[in-house]
Amino acid sequence: MVHEPNNWGRFGPDDQRGTLNLLTPDVVLDALRGARTGQVLSLAMPIRGATSSPAPTTVPHLRGRPLPQHFMSVDGGDYAAGARPVGAGLRVADDALIVTCHGTTTHMDALCHMWSGDELYNGHPAARVRSYGATRCGIEQVGGVVARGLLFDVPRHLGLDHLLAGFRIPAELLEEIATPRPGDVAVIRTGWPLVWQRSPEEYWSGQPGLSADAGRWLAAHDVSVVACDNAAVGGLNPRGLADEDLADDLHLILLHRHGVHLVEMLWLEELGAEARAEFVFVAAPLRIEGGTGSPITPLAIL
Amino acid sequence: MVHEPNNWGRFGPDDQRGTLNLLTPDVVLDALRGARTGQVLSLAMPIRGATSSPAPTTVPHLRGRPLPQHFMSVDGGDYAAGARPVGAGLRVADDALIVTCHGTTTHMDALCHMWSGDELYNGHPAARVRSYGATRCGIEQVGGVVARGLLFDVPRHLGLDHLLAGFRIPAELLEEIATPRPGDVAVIRTGWPLVWQRSPEEYWSGQPGLSADAGRWLAAHDVSVVACDNAAVGGLNPRGLADEDLADDLHLILLHRHGVHLVEMLWLEELGAEARAEFVFVAAPLRIEGGTGSPITPLAIL
Amino acid sequence: MVHEPNNWGRFGPDDQRGTLNLLTPDVVLDALRGARTGQVLSLAMPIRGATSSPAPTTVPHLRGRPLPQHFMSVDGGDYAAGARPVGAGLRVADDALIVTCHGTTTHMDALCHMWSGDELYNGHPAARVRSYGATRCGIEQVGGVVARGLLFDVPRHLGLDHLLAGFRIPAELLEEIATPRPGDVAVIRTGWPLVWQRSPEEYWSGQPGLSADAGRWLAAHDVSVVACDNAAVGGLNPRGLADEDLADDLHLILLHRHGVHLVEMLWLEELGAEARAEFVFVAAPLRIEGGTGSPITPLAIL
Amino acid sequence: MVHEPNNWGRFGPDDQRGTLNLLTPDVVLDALRGARTGQVLSLAMPIRGATSSPAPTTVPHLRGRPLPQHFMSVDGGDYAAGARPVGAGLRVADDALIVTCHGTTTHMDALCHMWSGDELYNGHPAARVRSYGATRCGIEQVGGVVARGLLFDVPRHLGLDHLLAGFRIPAELLEEIATPRPGDVAVIRTGWPLVWQRSPEEYWSGQPGLSADAGRWLAAHDVSVVACDNAAVGGLNPRGLADEDLADDLHLILLHRHGVHLVEMLWLEELGAEARAEFVFVAAPLRIEGGTGSPITPLAIL
Repeated sequence: MVHEPNNWGRFGPDDQRGTLNLLTPDVVLDALRGARTGQVLSLAMPIRGATSSPAPTTVPHLRGRPLPQHFMSVDGGDYAAGARPVGAGLRVADDALIVTCHGTTTHMDALCHMWSGDELYNGHPAARVRSYGATRCGIEQVGGVVARGLLFDVPRHLGLDHLLAGFRIPAELLEEIATPRPGDVAVIRTGWPLVWQRSPEEYWSGQPGLSADAGRWLAAHDVSVVACDNAAVGGLNPRGLADEDLADDLHLILLHRHGVHLVEMLWLEELGAEARAEFVFVAAPLRIEGGTGSPITPLAIL
Repeated sequence: MVHEPNNWGRFGPDDQRGTLNLLTPDVVLDALRGARTGQVLSLAMPIRGATSSPAPTTVPHLRGRPLPQHFMSVDGGDYAAGARPVGAGLRVADDALIVTCHGTTTHMDALCHMWSGDELYNGHPAARVRSYGATRCGIEQVGGVVARGLLFDVPRHLGLDHLLAGFRIPAELLEEIATPRPGDVAVIRTGWPLVWQRSPEEYWSGQPGLSADAGRWLAAHDVSVVACDNAAVGGLNPRGLADEDLADDLHLILLHRHGVHLVEMLWLEELGAEARAEFVFVAAPLRIEGGTGSPITPLAIL
Repeated sequence: MVHEPNNWGRFGPDDQRGTLNLLTPDVVLDALRGARTGQVLSLAMPIRGATSSPAPTTVPHLRGRPLPQHFMSVDGGDYAAGARPVGAGLRVADDALIVTCHGTTTHMDALCHMWSGDELYNGHPAARVRSYGATRCGIEQVGGVVARGLLFDVPRHLGLDHLLAGFRIPAELLEEIATPRPGDVAVIRTGWPLVWQRSPEEYWSGQPGLSADAGRWLAAHDVSVVACDNAAVGGLNPRGLADEDLADDLHLILLHRHGVHLVEMLWLEELGAEARAEFVFVAAPLRIEGGTGSPITPLAIL
Repeated sequence: MVHEPNNWGRFGPDDQRGTLNLLTPDVVLDALRGARTGQVLSLAMPIRGATSSPAPTTVPHLRGRPLPQHFMSVDGGDYAAGARPVGAGLRVADDALIVTCHGTTTHMDALCHMWSGDELYNGHPAARVRSYGATRCGIEQVGGVVARGLLFDVPRHLGLDHLLAGFRIPAELLEEIATPRPGDVAVIRTGWPLVWQRSPEEYWSGQPGLSADAGRWLAAHDVSVVACDNAAVGGLNPRGLADEDLADDLHLILLHRHGVHLVEMLWLEELGAEARAEFVFVAAPLRIEGGTGSPITPLAIL
């Protein structure tokens, strides 16, 4: 018998993978050596279906996006109502999830998520991003991220609870906080998710984010991933849109021109409270073939 | 302003979390110290929607389960057909995923996934597992797993490509290969996914898996997770069912009685080829509130 | 060869079908004789997916309900981007719909949709309504409705564009307009969908609807269906809820106690403009086994 | 207050609506006059979700297509398990449906479903069929069909239970049975769904269907709809494909060149047993904006 292995465990061709190429084994080992206490924090917000709860409020999300839906195809209620157990007495709960990750969950963007003109990152043809998935630069190319996480807690640096909606973080401010090494994951805290707890309307009134200069500064330092607790890395105006021109758009600077993957909608409050500047950052998107992104649960190992 | 933080970064109450309680900071630090080369392998099979590809064959799965569906709500084809870019010229691809993880993808089971009688693991009432999710023992309680992975490559140990469908791995065989420490992730290779490449019909003709004794042996060694490349940890008969009685059912032994989380449908061929007995195992399920499981991309850091 | 026919074309057992039993062949023939001009009007609002359009506004719906999602699994954009045609040159577009009909689309309620206590309509056990569908009183029992439609255009009768949010239509008002015969479909126009065009917020500020007395009056006249252009047949308070007590709840009066099927969220503006008091009403819900309702496109044949 | 009505009750521009233009008020009135007994038959197969039933067999469908999924977001089991009723004691069941209609349910094809070259029916640009729906020739253009149904019960005419998989119905055979008038719905019975009850494998081994000549003959007689109990109007080869060349493809002849809407996967056994050559045919697809088709429950009024 001769197997032609699928090699599903190997990551894809390098030229589709952007600055994740920076995640060499040396970078990985170096990152792991940074663990101090062994405490593990989740940086993800919950995925709470529109149908999974009768509660009137829900998780921070961009207005108008299709919210996650979570269904049980069999559950304990069915047995309470008299459903027969399986086989000798086994009871099972099974579910299904419908998720559009961008704007609704903690997620990672694939390199095929945004572009301008006819080419994706690294010249891949945008015409390969079709209804049955992207055969170039899909999220399945990422594999996993294991790297040093570097926390830029901007509001703490400024003595604020959270940044204001109109604030665009300048490169100088990042520079005051820390200097990334190649392969680092830059974790940017704006504190904006705290606003949701006061008022969804205020959360939707705009969002603070990186300035174009800050994006260029991070790319110049060869970070592998930029990971933020806001919804779009850059800021949003009151209509919920990025309004930089094409040269200054944060997605185009990072994702499109430099192949830097983006993580958005993180929950960073516990990590911020720990005030740990460096930690091990691990994230592994679902291997969705041709996906434009994936919901994820990033971990910080302190 | 007084925040009442959501504490979404903290893991849930201990008594819902089973042997993951074994994942103390010491276990985490000890696991990280086991990394040697820094190579990172994905242990996940791809998620390939029934609608994401015109190909006649697809990814190993249990017959009759609802397969993942992956849709693009906007893609490069739309721009090729004349869709207007966003704003100053930004183009975007966006997608949605429908997934029932059990039996169709590499996934982790929540403690609410299986039980007998009226109680889940640790006496939680099964009646709390309802249509809007499980308010006890849901997958969101897991947070993340960072632990030493211990590979039990059973077919390699026996000089086989893969185990046969009717084989139930005895405890003695595991014992010959390695002895887990508390908190370890026991990674069991059966090689069964290789059979899919020969024939889906053969893949569905039954599956090899752990014997009840092997399950008890692993639980007695306080492993935190049992992770397998077959579909159900235990074996399956030709009708695709586990046929142990209640005392010997692998899900009941591990998940229900000992709170050991299960990972199923791994892709272990590259890891097996590396022949590394120990490595760092990292997995973080999606934070689906009340979920019975989550698709995951586990990583092995060598 | 002996067939055991599925009899999918036959309607289910009578006792699950409520007052649709009133739709005897005589009622059907009598209804058809009422057609005058042969003009056919659709009484349905469009199903416009959250993802099917970039437009900022959408179709009237109850706030917080999961909106329909519509995806193309292959479309003309893919061919514009270079996808190969099928076979000798055939091109195909294919799609998928995710729909939760109650509160989001023009739909019919099944008899299993609402109840109080432990019994559905006609004493069927509510415990038979489970995660895998209702084995009693599901929407597949309806088959089809062909009956005389009787328009109660209440705002026109009162000289208004639409009723006000707090108005509950008294039985006397219906009585002034028309008197139903057994089997008739009572079509109640409130005009409330017009409010959506002014302001979704106003649409959500409450809704006019039938009073309990009006519900009892319709049931006493043996109508087969009550069909309305509001969202819940009865009125809604500013929090979007029906607030009658159990004795007076419109769903309980009509659906639960009398087995009268309900159609909600109709679009009646063209029918209203025609000012035809009687017409042929035809509606056929999808044959969803165990469904709590179905999106429909009711037709009025004038 | 000035309303700009949505006119959702009006059908779309004529040139998108194909031969449904034949459904003039005279045709409708003439059809209604054909009712004799007032008996109403459903011509739909049930929609039975992959997850709605534990049963091993299901409803006839094309192999490999994504099957319907039906979920309850709240049900009687939840109340049995202790869920609190709504308000004063109201209990509610609510559900969601995921459906890809082509190949899985009784459905109607939109004119945008198939084409060759760059143009849809009547010269509409195929590039307007995009990920967010078809802005030309979508299923919402149909409105409703009320017409004379003309049954071509081919196996009965030949003294067979059902046609054989390789049989392509010649025009002459249709001609022997009946001659359509403009606007008629030609209902073609092959009996093939009966084969499903013997064996899904046999159902998938090919399908009988119309010959190209028969398609041309029907188009020449100005039928408004061709409605069949097979899956593709034309026949299918053992690989489940239509294998006529472009000139003879049934979808291209009827849908693309003549704008004749197609209904597929009907259940005609009860109608066939009634042996009624003529009846009133009514069908109203869901008003899915830009949809490529819709699941439907067609009615035959005898």
